[in-house]
Amino acid sequence: MRSSYHEELDGIIEQLVHMASLVETAMHDASESLINADLTKAEAVISGDAQLDALHEELEYKCLSLLALQAPVAGELRIVVSAIRVVFEFARMGDLAAHIAKIARLRYPEHAVPKDLEPNFIEMARIAEQMVQLAKTTLSEHDAEEAMKLAKVDADVDGLRREHFQVILDENWQGTVEDAVDVALLGRYYERFCDHAVAVGRRTIYLVTGAAPTGEDWPNA
Amino acid sequence: MRSSYHEELDGIIEQLVHMASLVETAMHDASESLINADLTKAEAVISGDAQLDALHEELEYKCLSLLALQAPVAGELRIVVSAIRVVFEFARMGDLAAHIAKIARLRYPEHAVPKDLEPNFIEMARIAEQMVQLAKTTLSEHDAEEAMKLAKVDADVDGLRREHFQVILDENWQGTVEDAVDVALLGRYYERFCDHAVAVGRRTIYLVTGAAPTGEDWPNA
Repeated sequence: MRSSYHEELDGIIEQLVHMASLVETAMHDASESLINADLTKAEAVISGDAQLDALHEELEYKCLSLLALQAPVAGELRIVVSAIRVVFEFARMGDLAAHIAKIARLRYPEHAVPKDLEPNFIEMARIAEQMVQLAKTTLSEHDAEEAMKLAKVDADVDGLRREHFQVILDENWQGTVEDAVDVALLGRYYERFCDHAVAVGRRTIYLVTGAAPTGEDWPNA
Repeated sequence: MRSSYHEELDGIIEQLVHMASLVETAMHDASESLINADLTKAEAVISGDAQLDALHEELEYKCLSLLALQAPVAGELRIVVSAIRVVFEFARMGDLAAHIAKIARLRYPEHAVPKDLEPNFIEMARIAEQMVQLAKTTLSEHDAEEAMKLAKVDADVDGLRREHFQVILDENWQGTVEDAVDVALLGRYYERFCDHAVAVGRRTIYLVTGAAPTGEDWPNA
């Protein structure tokens, strides 16, 4: 029994890493659907989100069963409690990738991102993908130092958001109200996606060290 | 020891209800600051958010200590696990109230909400407040039936959001790009606030019945 319990614990981490890969693909495809106005990719992200939601339910149930049946302590308790939070974060990240794909679908065959803000969103997409990769690596390698990088990278997202607000609120900007609303909401979705990646890092640090970092570098995501 | 443990469990529920009251006040004041362009109220909500974040940390720590030291099972395990999720939901609701207050502060002494959308946001504010009250009551009275109402009320928020998008995207609308961006983001904040209230209801049902409701009525908040 005890040994199958340890297998289950290892299995949880593996499934979290698997969930991270699914989120990575979802965000990659969502950004492509947005930048290239690719309807097929957008549809794939939107319909694929159900898989992440199902994994969320399944893993949360598994963690709660472990808590109830095995009453883990110390480091093992930390793994289960962290896992409950991390599955939630990944599920939300999947939802946000789907929100981005839905805006791409809504504007198809037009591009949702105005031409002059394309570089801004390409960079935003690059950072979002980098962050989910960092989160995945820190999780699979239990590396608290790697996790600390997440908060640093996240600061760049805030800079990109300020930049696109400057563009759309400039009185000489040529975009429509609809363009501006899309940009504002897309920016919000990318920002929240990255906040959740930071939260995964925060939980990983807790998992590894037993202490959650606090302070300004760690936004409450 | 066992008796102080039960006191601690009761204490957790009491503190959750206290947190709900703080969130209710925060949202009430945030909406007032927004509708009346009231800078003092906006500042109060923004600075008051630190208290909710501190309560989040404190309660989460308390729950994890209980899990580690007491290894609760069955209904008691459900209380602790639900509490971990509910404190998180309330902390996010506090953040969202602060986001609303920040937009009110940014536009002061102007009104962030365009005149023609004031009734829409007054109704949105009323529903948000009603939802946090429902969440609080279901939590304090462990009433799963009351919690079911949350998902029903939440549907009205989606209707209000569709309505204000119709207004700002109408080609004859007189508002500026800035107005439209504010409306889109404010709508998103109210919507997410209400989603989190639904999630509190969902967790309360789990707490009471041991089974989380699934299906269309229960958005993954």
